[in-house]
Amino acid sequence: MSQNAREQAVLSAVRERRELVNDAIDEDLPPKRPERLYEASRYLLKAGGKRLRPAVLLLTAEALADVELGSTDYREFPDLHGEVIDVMASAVSIEVIQSFTLIHDDIMDDDDLRRGVPAVHREYDTETAILAGDTLYSKAFEIMLRTEAPAERGLEAMRTLAETCTHICEGQALDVDFETRSDVLPDEYMEMVELKTAVLFAAASTLPGILLGADDDTVEALYNYGLRVGQAFQIHDDVLDLTVPSEKLGKQRGSDLVENKKTVVTLHAAKHGVDVGDLLDTNDPEEVTDEEIEAAVAELRDVGSIEYARDLADDLVAEGKAHLEVLPENEAHTRLEQVADYLVEREY
Amino acid sequence: MSQNAREQAVLSAVRERRELVNDAIDEDLPPKRPERLYEASRYLLKAGGKRLRPAVLLLTAEALADVELGSTDYREFPDLHGEVIDVMASAVSIEVIQSFTLIHDDIMDDDDLRRGVPAVHREYDTETAILAGDTLYSKAFEIMLRTEAPAERGLEAMRTLAETCTHICEGQALDVDFETRSDVLPDEYMEMVELKTAVLFAAASTLPGILLGADDDTVEALYNYGLRVGQAFQIHDDVLDLTVPSEKLGKQRGSDLVENKKTVVTLHAAKHGVDVGDLLDTNDPEEVTDEEIEAAVAELRDVGSIEYARDLADDLVAEGKAHLEVLPENEAHTRLEQVADYLVEREY
Repeated sequence: MSQNAREQAVLSAVRERRELVNDAIDEDLPPKRPERLYEASRYLLKAGGKRLRPAVLLLTAEALADVELGSTDYREFPDLHGEVIDVMASAVSIEVIQSFTLIHDDIMDDDDLRRGVPAVHREYDTETAILAGDTLYSKAFEIMLRTEAPAERGLEAMRTLAETCTHICEGQALDVDFETRSDVLPDEYMEMVELKTAVLFAAASTLPGILLGADDDTVEALYNYGLRVGQAFQIHDDVLDLTVPSEKLGKQRGSDLVENKKTVVTLHAAKHGVDVGDLLDTNDPEEVTDEEIEAAVAELRDVGSIEYARDLADDLVAEGKAHLEVLPENEAHTRLEQVADYLVEREY
Repeated sequence: MSQNAREQAVLSAVRERRELVNDAIDEDLPPKRPERLYEASRYLLKAGGKRLRPAVLLLTAEALADVELGSTDYREFPDLHGEVIDVMASAVSIEVIQSFTLIHDDIMDDDDLRRGVPAVHREYDTETAILAGDTLYSKAFEIMLRTEAPAERGLEAMRTLAETCTHICEGQALDVDFETRSDVLPDEYMEMVELKTAVLFAAASTLPGILLGADDDTVEALYNYGLRVGQAFQIHDDVLDLTVPSEKLGKQRGSDLVENKKTVVTLHAAKHGVDVGDLLDTNDPEEVTDEEIEAAVAELRDVGSIEYARDLADDLVAEGKAHLEVLPENEAHTRLEQVADYLVEREY
């Protein structure tokens, strides 16, 4: 299948599930009192988002249960032992966690824009944004309790969710720490990416294994698929931050450079003699021009750092896809392979 | 028993359990990498705290299981059906949630001091404090998963924890909202106190019921004990904020007045003709003197508002204690009654 045909297949699979996920978010996280708190909590979720993690979760469930693609009610989904599970609740829970982390990260990074709209702490205020994130945090746990899976599996799903959240916090702490360190090693960066980003993809791909009652080897293989693909996703995101215009990104191009974030790209460049701290010769982040970003990116490209990052992401995707061999051969399985490819081919 | 003897009995029961709870916190939340994140997460927990909620939880477990006071390992505690439960893990989980809420509340309220030491966002920075709170949040869920209760009860404990956290966020949102409203009704204030403060006491008192396998009526009665006592606790806290010197409080005396927080005291005063917004005639919170606080408190005392709050707290304690009739008669049961009395008699 050509890259274009593959991309269309993925986008259509994601889009079809996105509609259902958006409806489910409204059902599982309706507006309620205190009004302003729930408005702020729902603001970013309502502002859009591709719903990639829910799509991965739902496709994994379909591949595992070996059902015809898009044929089955995700709220009453057949497990592997004759029970019925609400896998959609777990998909909503993961998206709600994603939203909570974005809200708090934007406060910590003092980012103004997200998904093309003001960040929650800009649209409301920092206090409200902290509290909106905290509310989504517990709501995600409440929603994960609604899968109606047998109790042992339900507990395992809660464990996965809790450990995932802890890892995300640890990853964010490393990310912030790296901003002021000049001696970050590539392995440390990969650990940070695993904790901050990849574990949530891993949770999305492994939760159907847990909830539908797959064996331990399958649950682990699905986890590793998400982990590798999630790492690739973040590395590709780092590349996009450098190469895609702001209006397409929905946030400032080159924001990682401006904030002195370490990425695979800048670590590779530093190793190859580029003075990364000096790429942007301004002290005022507000004053960085598109031309300065473009010049910095050209230097990174010339030294091979952007190509290096792309290659690394490709390798991780290949590794991730190999873990899918535990799944039956079916259309959903194919789509999960294509999603992995898409994540490192997408242009925004 | 005299008030003094009762207070000594309570303080000694709380103190004996506090040592064990502190050890358990170190076991269940050890320092780890990233170091700064876990240091900040543990900072407030290590700074002290009375461990009232864990004490209520452990005493409730002892009363329910009808064991001799202080005789039983909380890590291997007998349930009502011949199984062994780690009730200490649930006590630690509740204290960790309490710590998370204090860290985030102090950021939102811009409070400088807590437990006599700088608030986490002052000792570290706001970003680290947000992340430390987020880390404690998921850790509390991880720790609650370690009780080894049968899966159905374990899930119910997780549900209680998640719903409690949501309620605390809702209560904090109402509290912040009330600061800029002049038309807060007493019922709204009581709802805020229930959500912000009382539900965590209720969680502490009901969790042993859930984990040890008590019947639904007992679980509900224990919840209501904690709820009423928790409301009384907060109302008494509001009184203490006005009447106790800063050095004894561990934070600025009168901070609620300075921040224009609504309390039962100020709502009563407003209803009786006091212009509460005008009690402190300064626009700069940093400039408020002890004398000004004293004058404001005198006005509140003269109109009967402080006595009104004390009476209300006493009524709630009586109501709370009545719910304990579901428990067997034993020393732990008596201690829980005394704890309720102590919470509205304590001087800081």
